[in-house]
Amino acid sequence: MSKPYVIGIDIGGTNTVFGIVDARGQVVAIDSVKTLKHADFDDYIAQLKEGVERLLRANDAEDKIQGIGIGAPNANYYTGEIINPPNLPWGPVIPLARKVSEAFNGIPVAITNDANAAALGEMTYGAARGMRDFIMITLGTGVGSGIVVNGQLVYGHDGFAGELGHVIVKRNNGRICGCGRTGCLEAYCSATGVARTAREFLEVRTEPSELRNLQIEDITSKDVYDAAIAGDKLAKNIFDYTGTILGQAFADMIAFSSPQAIILFGGLAKSGDLLLKPLNEALNKAILPIFRGKTKIILSELRESDAAVLGASALGWEAKYRADLPAGNNGTQNRNLPIEVPAE
Amino acid sequence: MSKPYVIGIDIGGTNTVFGIVDARGQVVAIDSVKTLKHADFDDYIAQLKEGVERLLRANDAEDKIQGIGIGAPNANYYTGEIINPPNLPWGPVIPLARKVSEAFNGIPVAITNDANAAALGEMTYGAARGMRDFIMITLGTGVGSGIVVNGQLVYGHDGFAGELGHVIVKRNNGRICGCGRTGCLEAYCSATGVARTAREFLEVRTEPSELRNLQIEDITSKDVYDAAIAGDKLAKNIFDYTGTILGQAFADMIAFSSPQAIILFGGLAKSGDLLLKPLNEALNKAILPIFRGKTKIILSELRESDAAVLGASALGWEAKYRADLPAGNNGTQNRNLPIEVPAE
Repeated sequence: MSKPYVIGIDIGGTNTVFGIVDARGQVVAIDSVKTLKHADFDDYIAQLKEGVERLLRANDAEDKIQGIGIGAPNANYYTGEIINPPNLPWGPVIPLARKVSEAFNGIPVAITNDANAAALGEMTYGAARGMRDFIMITLGTGVGSGIVVNGQLVYGHDGFAGELGHVIVKRNNGRICGCGRTGCLEAYCSATGVARTAREFLEVRTEPSELRNLQIEDITSKDVYDAAIAGDKLAKNIFDYTGTILGQAFADMIAFSSPQAIILFGGLAKSGDLLLKPLNEALNKAILPIFRGKTKIILSELRESDAAVLGASALGWEAKYRADLPAGNNGTQNRNLPIEVPAE
Repeated sequence: MSKPYVIGIDIGGTNTVFGIVDARGQVVAIDSVKTLKHADFDDYIAQLKEGVERLLRANDAEDKIQGIGIGAPNANYYTGEIINPPNLPWGPVIPLARKVSEAFNGIPVAITNDANAAALGEMTYGAARGMRDFIMITLGTGVGSGIVVNGQLVYGHDGFAGELGHVIVKRNNGRICGCGRTGCLEAYCSATGVARTAREFLEVRTEPSELRNLQIEDITSKDVYDAAIAGDKLAKNIFDYTGTILGQAFADMIAFSSPQAIILFGGLAKSGDLLLKPLNEALNKAILPIFRGKTKIILSELRESDAAVLGASALGWEAKYRADLPAGNNGTQNRNLPIEVPAE
């Protein structure tokens, strides 16, 4: 007999947001704790447990939780671990699913990375309802992705599939990316990438622009957006450049999985036609004829404040891992943890 | 009660090869007819039926066929049709699955394109047995691909996913491709692409090469292979160039689906280390660190003469479409034809 709620937890670099979510995707209640308060992972878990239990008590939901879904950077769906997270202090391998399930008396837990969680949220509650094949692209500080094929998230053989922010869009002389390589999509089409483009354009070009009134090192994508909306031609060109690269990259993604839609999420997605117009033009030009006009580029339908928790919560409905079961006893047909990861 | 054999049919531009295959992947018997003998599709089907029935009679297999699987260019798994085939004369939309099932008294039929069929063959009988996530790359006259995710072929929302020969490897000043665009992987890393590289290198470079003894317009990838094996430095450079582009493209594919293996099939794959060494070097250099060393690049284990028929036959085991059932009455859970293609 399934229970009426799941808990969604989004572990960010600053806050850990958690919410109680019902089957229709209503966030019943939401709260947060500071992610980096404790250097010891067990202390963090205790703090999280306390916060979640307080929220459950206040909403009379203590025995009504079907499962817990967690979105976290570098979270591996198969192993239940966070691996080498760049901004978390708890070590290179963090047994997140096990610790959370233990803390909550064996409630089933499933974890994945934030972009995959966003894709699940969109499929369960948002713009991708009813879609079996789509790609979620998150345009934030970085570029993330969650890919759905045949109605299932693409985790890959190791649990880390869907790193579309790191496909190469400039083979030669590309920008250095945070991943250590050069020419990645993320280096151009993230919020940070837009700011970098602004700095490049301002240095290389000579035409006037409102952006020249700002300290060049402090320019953000928001500044570029505001200037473009106010009619600044150079700022518009920056969005043309960004949208064009994104559209060209999308053509290659469509050749891979022919999705019904690519769904944009995150700050830059809110730029609307400034981004979408050049994106669609470049996509339409770059795409293989057999796919032309078939894949819709649409915006997320989830409210940004709820989306991370909603996305994580969607994973809670199918969570299978329970800390109190013997390892390997959870039914491998779900390909859930802690089953063996296929040999490499 | 399932029957002991399936029929695999591979429709090529010259020959249509068909075979009786058992559950262990043994080709019990094989024969062929000329694909282009008849301009009328019904006549072609009659000719195919006659050939297949002769083979069945000769092998006492007439009532032992579980299903028919067909690999054909531009074949759509969902609709059962061949759409706009470049080299077949029977019109823009060819109702292949229906006509074949009708011709064989309602035996279930499933169709897909040749690269997908190759991937299925490899998964059922070859190097991908037991793998749930892999990519098949066919390096022939063109570059084809069949992608498997979570143990299922990736067809995409329209049935045409997996066109990895047409991801863009040169954004600027790329070679014209047969698809009408420029810079596609296929324009560089197919057998034809290798021959084009040879012509480019011979024109642009000045060093001596055995290849200069040949008519430049007649040089084939086989000539380049022979010269490279004989120690010709320029010919080796051509393979280095080809392998490098392929390795870089593979890095992006791995960022998408993180496959356990990429399996190479087709003439060029037989070049061995001439191709694989630069390929692996470029891949290892280009790949996102989290994926490094995880995805094996391996060769198909299917004999080339059998592979197309074996691959097509693998689809026969799961074929569901029967011409004598009312349309829509075949169980949509299999996502097989003639179910509705998801709305676009």
